[in-house]
Amino acid sequence: MFYPIKNTKVYEQVIEQIKQMVDDGTLKKGDKLPSERDLVEQLNVSRASIREALKALEVIGLIDCKQGEGNYIKTSFEDNLFEPLSIMFMLEESDPESIWELRKIMEVEAAGLASKRINNKDLKELKELTERFLDLDNEEIHAEIDKKFHYKIAKCCGNILIYNILKTLSNLVDHFIKDIRKSILVDKGNKEILFSQHHNIYLSMESHDSKAARKAMREHFDFANKYMNK
Amino acid sequence: MFYPIKNTKVYEQVIEQIKQMVDDGTLKKGDKLPSERDLVEQLNVSRASIREALKALEVIGLIDCKQGEGNYIKTSFEDNLFEPLSIMFMLEESDPESIWELRKIMEVEAAGLASKRINNKDLKELKELTERFLDLDNEEIHAEIDKKFHYKIAKCCGNILIYNILKTLSNLVDHFIKDIRKSILVDKGNKEILFSQHHNIYLSMESHDSKAARKAMREHFDFANKYMNK
Repeated sequence: MFYPIKNTKVYEQVIEQIKQMVDDGTLKKGDKLPSERDLVEQLNVSRASIREALKALEVIGLIDCKQGEGNYIKTSFEDNLFEPLSIMFMLEESDPESIWELRKIMEVEAAGLASKRINNKDLKELKELTERFLDLDNEEIHAEIDKKFHYKIAKCCGNILIYNILKTLSNLVDHFIKDIRKSILVDKGNKEILFSQHHNIYLSMESHDSKAARKAMREHFDFANKYMNK
Repeated sequence: MFYPIKNTKVYEQVIEQIKQMVDDGTLKKGDKLPSERDLVEQLNVSRASIREALKALEVIGLIDCKQGEGNYIKTSFEDNLFEPLSIMFMLEESDPESIWELRKIMEVEAAGLASKRINNKDLKELKELTERFLDLDNEEIHAEIDKKFHYKIAKCCGNILIYNILKTLSNLVDHFIKDIRKSILVDKGNKEILFSQHHNIYLSMESHDSKAARKAMREHFDFANKYMNK
C-alpha cells in the first residue's frame, strides 16, 4: 500500500530536529544552540534554511537570537502565544467579548485551583498586592498591581498552561479592549469596590476554600463586565 | 526626554507591517500576499528578511506558502497553537496532567455555553455523532467520532478562542497522553458507558440546559480521569 508523501519543507525539518532534541532532553531551557555553521554542517542544509527555522522559532517565542552571541533556548515562555492568538483573532474578526468570556472562565477556575495549592510565601505576597491596591493614585501603577495580583493567582495553580494562556488573554484584553480599565476607574468609589473584591479573593485563598475563591473571582469579573460596553 | 531605542529586527518589522494590514482589514482570510519581489521593493528590505518573516508566519499557522503559487493568508487557524504550546510544554517539563486539567475545565464550560447557543442544524449533527458512537468496532474511527463530538460542542460555543484552544488541547492530549484512549477501551463495557455519557451531554444540549450540560461533561471527564494513570 502506498502512503501519501508529505511535502515537508527543509526549514520545517530543521525545526522538527530541534524539537526532537527538546523532546529527548538534549536541549533544555537556557541552553545555547549549536552555531549556524555547525547546524549547516550537521543537518546538511543551506544556511538560509537554518536561518528561516531559527527566526520561526524566535517568533513562536522559543529561542532568543542574540546578535553576535548566538541562539539560546528561552528560559521563560510567557509571551509565546500572544502573536499567534492576536493575529488569529484579527483574521477571524472575532468579538473582543470572546477574549473576555474565556478569560473569565479561566480566572474563576484558576482561583479555585490556586486556593488549594497556594503556599504561605505566595499568600504573603498576595496579601501585599491586595493591600497596595488601595494606596495607589496613579492609574498605570494601579493597572500593574492589578495584573500582578491576577498573575500571582494564575501562577499558584501550578499549571503552566493555565498560567501561560491566562497571561496571554490578559494581554489580549489590554490590546483589544483598551478602555475597560479606564471606564471602571472613572466611577468614583469603584477603587474601593475593586479593593474589597480583591480582598475577598485573598481571604478565600487564605482559607483554602475553592468554592469561595471561585465565587469571589466570578463576582469580580461580573462587576467588571458591566463596563465592557460603556 | 529620551526613550529606549527598541532593537527591532528587520524580519520582525516585516511581520509587524503584515499584521498592521491584517488589523486594518487590507488583508483578509484567504487573500494572496504581494509577491516576494513586490514585498522586497515596497518594504525596501532584503529578500532574505522577507523570506524569514514569511516562514515565521507560516510556522505560527497564519499563512500558507505554496511553492510556485505564492503566499496566502490561511482560511482556518485551527492548528496555530499546537507548535508553540507543545514545545513550551516540553521545555517546561510539565506534567501531562496539566493538559488534562485545563482541557477538563474548558470542556465543561464550553458545554455550558454551547447548550445555550447550539442551533437545530448542529443539534441534528451532534445527535448523529452520538448515535454512530455505539456502532463502531474500529478503534481509530471510534477516536475520530469522539473527537468530532467534542469539537462540535466546542464550535457551538461561538467563541473562536475556546474552539481553537480546545482543539489544540485535544491534540496535545493525543500527543502526550497517548494511551488514555486505549486504556479506557480495554475495559469491556466502557464503550456503552461512554455512549451513555455522550448521550446525556447530547440531551442537555437538546434541552438547552447549561447546568445539566456542565454536569454531564464533568462526569464524562471524571470517568476518563480514572484511566489517566493506568
